[in-house]
Amino acid sequence: MSQVVVHNFSISLDGYGTGEGLTQQEPFGHAGERLHTWMFATRMWARMTGDPDPSAGSTGIDDLLASRHERGVGAEIMGRGKWSWRSGPVTDVGTDGEWRGWWGEDPPFHTPVFVLTHHPRPPLEMEGGTTFHFLDASPAQALEIAKEAAGGLDVRIGGGPSIVRDFLAAGLIDTAHLVQVPILLGRGVNLWTGLEGLEEHYAIEAIPSPSGVVHLLLSRRGSAS
Amino acid sequence: MSQVVVHNFSISLDGYGTGEGLTQQEPFGHAGERLHTWMFATRMWARMTGDPDPSAGSTGIDDLLASRHERGVGAEIMGRGKWSWRSGPVTDVGTDGEWRGWWGEDPPFHTPVFVLTHHPRPPLEMEGGTTFHFLDASPAQALEIAKEAAGGLDVRIGGGPSIVRDFLAAGLIDTAHLVQVPILLGRGVNLWTGLEGLEEHYAIEAIPSPSGVVHLLLSRRGSAS
Repeated sequence: MSQVVVHNFSISLDGYGTGEGLTQQEPFGHAGERLHTWMFATRMWARMTGDPDPSAGSTGIDDLLASRHERGVGAEIMGRGKWSWRSGPVTDVGTDGEWRGWWGEDPPFHTPVFVLTHHPRPPLEMEGGTTFHFLDASPAQALEIAKEAAGGLDVRIGGGPSIVRDFLAAGLIDTAHLVQVPILLGRGVNLWTGLEGLEEHYAIEAIPSPSGVVHLLLSRRGSAS
Repeated sequence: MSQVVVHNFSISLDGYGTGEGLTQQEPFGHAGERLHTWMFATRMWARMTGDPDPSAGSTGIDDLLASRHERGVGAEIMGRGKWSWRSGPVTDVGTDGEWRGWWGEDPPFHTPVFVLTHHPRPPLEMEGGTTFHFLDASPAQALEIAKEAAGGLDVRIGGGPSIVRDFLAAGLIDTAHLVQVPILLGRGVNLWTGLEGLEEHYAIEAIPSPSGVVHLLLSRRGSAS
């Protein structure tokens, strides 16, 4: 059954999904790589980044959950920020030649990706099966389009935090895998803002890892889809 | 060895230690009792509230941690809000006759309790060994006085959230037991505000409970006291 999912979305103990001061070099701002260190240590990551050692990376709960990222996803929805990692609208970005997003010519998505922006532009076909489509649409409208494109597979809500938040607030997500990292960022974009009472709509299970992170599994209550 | 400790301090998933709209009837505001349901279910609570059934209440990890509240504490420091559960300074409160705090004539502390306030008043001796002292002092100054009064036992930092935050920020706490409850309060007083980088000074261990809460144990790095 097709699901709307969030995978491997890391937040600090105080709820921040990105830090402050995002640039192309520091896409998570002052958070640096700290939100994702747990993921870089997994076998999933070693395999994804071409580590020749077949036993590289951890195989415990972090890897088990992180690996779900790879399977059964037919489309992704992301915010403009995750696509470009730049401030300013996409149209500004378009003026310096041919900015094709932050992800390089072979992005790790391999599906249609729908980028939410108030400044749409023509689609960008990349290598490896990724095509970026730019939509000025509500979460519900974007989801309808992405589901159609996913061809019966899952739709991943890829972030950043304000996008995940909007889709959670609208009750459009079936299951979300969040990863609470034991650091306090203090500033940035907070996933939890405006989500008062979310527990009435989502069951929340906490699974700790020896790595120190706590995996939070949210599943929509009474979800029939 | 005498320690400065926090016990059973509950926060929501988004970090709030109290909700909004605190009154005498609703001392945690719109949070109601939801931050403490986990504790009311423990054997410690059943015993403390005089339940005649010796097997009442849970005996798992929640009870194990909650029970530490009862042992080895020689003094407590709390904020004016926790003492009075009223808005306005203590001096205002003093004008309506003999307001002796929210806790009744036999408060559950049984030690000297130092109430931080900008409007000190004479000490209040209650039943059961609790005496409230009112101090206009910095966290470090208050701690020095409380340690003296504790006679070699631990000093508990009792809250509310802004008091725990101030003592954490000043590095004055040795170990803190926080309890993350899987609800999103959205508003109130957030424990994490202003604590960016706390993980550099405190190790943070997460222990999940079958009740759904996650116990967070903070211990100061390189603490010698």
